Amino acid sequence: MDWNMQFASATENMRRSTVREFLKFAKQPGMISFGGGLPAAELFPVAEFERASEAILRKHAGRALQYGETEGVAELRDYIATKYGVAVENVMITSGAQQALDLLGRVLIDRGDRIALENPTYLALLASWRVHRPEFVAIPSDENGMDVSQLGTGKKMLYVVPNFQNPQGTTLSHERRCALAEFAVRNEVVVVEDDPYGELRYEGEPLQSIFELGGKCNGPVVSVGTFSKVLSPGLRVGWVVAHQKLIEKLVLAKQSTDLHTSTFNQYVAWELATSGLLEHHVPRLRAEYERRRDAMLEALSTFMPAEVSWSRPAGGMFLLLRLPEELKGAEIARAALAAKVVVVPGEDFHIAGGENSLRLNFSNCAPELIRTGVERLANIVAQFVNNTAKYQVSFSSV
Amino acid sequence: MDWNMQFASATENMRRSTVREFLKFAKQPGMISFGGGLPAAELFPVAEFERASEAILRKHAGRALQYGETEGVAELRDYIATKYGVAVENVMITSGAQQALDLLGRVLIDRGDRIALENPTYLALLASWRVHRPEFVAIPSDENGMDVSQLGTGKKMLYVVPNFQNPQGTTLSHERRCALAEFAVRNEVVVVEDDPYGELRYEGEPLQSIFELGGKCNGPVVSVGTFSKVLSPGLRVGWVVAHQKLIEKLVLAKQSTDLHTSTFNQYVAWELATSGLLEHHVPRLRAEYERRRDAMLEALSTFMPAEVSWSRPAGGMFLLLRLPEELKGAEIARAALAAKVVVVPGEDFHIAGGENSLRLNFSNCAPELIRTGVERLANIVAQFVNNTAKYQVSFSSV
Repeated sequence: MDWNMQFASATENMRRSTVREFLKFAKQPGMISFGGGLPAAELFPVAEFERASEAILRKHAGRALQYGETEGVAELRDYIATKYGVAVENVMITSGAQQALDLLGRVLIDRGDRIALENPTYLALLASWRVHRPEFVAIPSDENGMDVSQLGTGKKMLYVVPNFQNPQGTTLSHERRCALAEFAVRNEVVVVEDDPYGELRYEGEPLQSIFELGGKCNGPVVSVGTFSKVLSPGLRVGWVVAHQKLIEKLVLAKQSTDLHTSTFNQYVAWELATSGLLEHHVPRLRAEYERRRDAMLEALSTFMPAEVSWSRPAGGMFLLLRLPEELKGAEIARAALAAKVVVVPGEDFHIAGGENSLRLNFSNCAPELIRTGVERLANIVAQFVNNTAKYQVSFSSV
Repeated sequence: MDWNMQFASATENMRRSTVREFLKFAKQPGMISFGGGLPAAELFPVAEFERASEAILRKHAGRALQYGETEGVAELRDYIATKYGVAVENVMITSGAQQALDLLGRVLIDRGDRIALENPTYLALLASWRVHRPEFVAIPSDENGMDVSQLGTGKKMLYVVPNFQNPQGTTLSHERRCALAEFAVRNEVVVVEDDPYGELRYEGEPLQSIFELGGKCNGPVVSVGTFSKVLSPGLRVGWVVAHQKLIEKLVLAKQSTDLHTSTFNQYVAWELATSGLLEHHVPRLRAEYERRRDAMLEALSTFMPAEVSWSRPAGGMFLLLRLPEELKGAEIARAALAAKVVVVPGEDFHIAGGENSLRLNFSNCAPELIRTGVERLANIVAQFVNNTAKYQVSFSSV
């Protein structure tokens, strides 16, 4: 049996991410990892999970262990609906936010559809939607997020992570949110607003969502959220909030995809979310992640060569390092492995360019380790900066 | 925003199942439901779930609540690999068996591919694979399962539930399994062997799988399994066992679909499966479901009009009722609702025909209720048998 002859043509658009190759090294002993997008495991509210699992099994075992409705557990849908100020019919629970994005792609994207994306943007969104063969249109971004003045016409859809986006950590400004909502309403462009990091803000005031600015479920904006960053990614519980017509299509698509999201996990998430845990747990996460972000920013200032710049996130889990143009992030990431630091090349997050970037995660390491890791990385970068300078001299002297 | 203008063309192949419409009524008070494919909630091993959740959170919280590898939790993959006598690289954990089927469709089916299916077969498989626009080829079946002598040539793939299939409850005979494995090897036809019910055998000896007969991972057979029927469907933990090349493609597809299956649930399933629970829990399920099957078969013999026939499953959760040809299962299922019985029309499980069939589930009702429900249903059927006879007389007398 030659399996290579069996695969569907759609698999040609499924690419193994080079990021994944680097993440494999994160578990090696002595390795300091800025690679993954992992929450800090030591901050998981384990005792509360124990209590919630027990409570659910005592109160709702018959439903929590049984098949459930594709739309999601009624109690959890109700919680999300209240949170967003929408009706239960506007909410579907998904197996993590990733599934919400994937189902949106299945239900909305036809081959050749033009989709506007911030450049760079979330890697696994690109992987998920690429199988439908759309045309990705890269919209430039700066420290205030996607430059919505450059959107132009002819777009079917737009994807944006408004708060502390992955991989840059940048946030879309209020002015641009207003402009984007207005653009979407005027041109009937579907906007997918993916907000996994919104609760993890370390400075400044929360900004209004594009979903709200665009008229909530009556407008063109679809909101995607998750418990992964505030409770646990291991639960795989996310949600999508949208117009009822879209939810109905998503339910149809989800039904044949995985029937429904784990009822047990939905009940556990609901129990935790309604127990008041988040009110004290999220501030605890914010305080610790802020310390880690600060440690990383300080270490970068201390150790990095002057030729290197980086984004300064007001929240979230990531920042992006920009190297001199002639340097390759992938080469530096490989060299860093030998120095026991894992970082991932930024290139795969870009629709165009980005070869000279590296993504650094700061949520998964204690501040002391962050300082050590950045120092190691800076030494590697310095070697490349110097080597490259020499190489360029010799090249131009040929 | 007119959402109807936004949907991708693939959504035209996403159909709302009429079965789903009937299942909505199952929760109404006083209703006896033979509708869903639900395990008996009163048999869930709740205390063991409590113990396992607690044990996992005490021992492995850092990993069980964290992001995990797309392939699945190493311990659980290892357990499945041992169970099947294959390498860990041949195993991927999925969000229920439904996701395994869905990913196999994504990775293997191109538009127009000819796929052989037992007629009738699992409804949600049809829904999942239909979006890729293959050509479904209906293979007739009898009490020994799919008639593999009628397979013919030119098939890319074949899907089969070998044990106590849904909706008929019939089992593919050993002879046909051998013939099917040989056919698949000779013609390089990918066989997806979906076995959710295999452990629920109430009589006779287990038969060798097509996967084994076809040379395990070196052959063309892919094996799909689940904990849904022996532990809990609410966990959404299933698996696929296949050649490593296929697993690698499935991992790529799954990664952008939902990143990975809940690590917490994978650990809980592993803890329960390796604790020895299944050795005494599955026999307990078998004994009770056998009682329920027997109650249904006896009640059918007692109450159904002579014009009606039905399958006699040796295991599983379902049987199929065949009504006189001129009767419509959907009409009878609607009429049965008024008599407080939920059954689902068999038509949607068929690629062709089946309008005169009804699927009955026997795992989710106590034997006394089964008897009452079948009596109610039989009264409805009898009315239709009589009415139709009259109608036909008057029609032919025109």
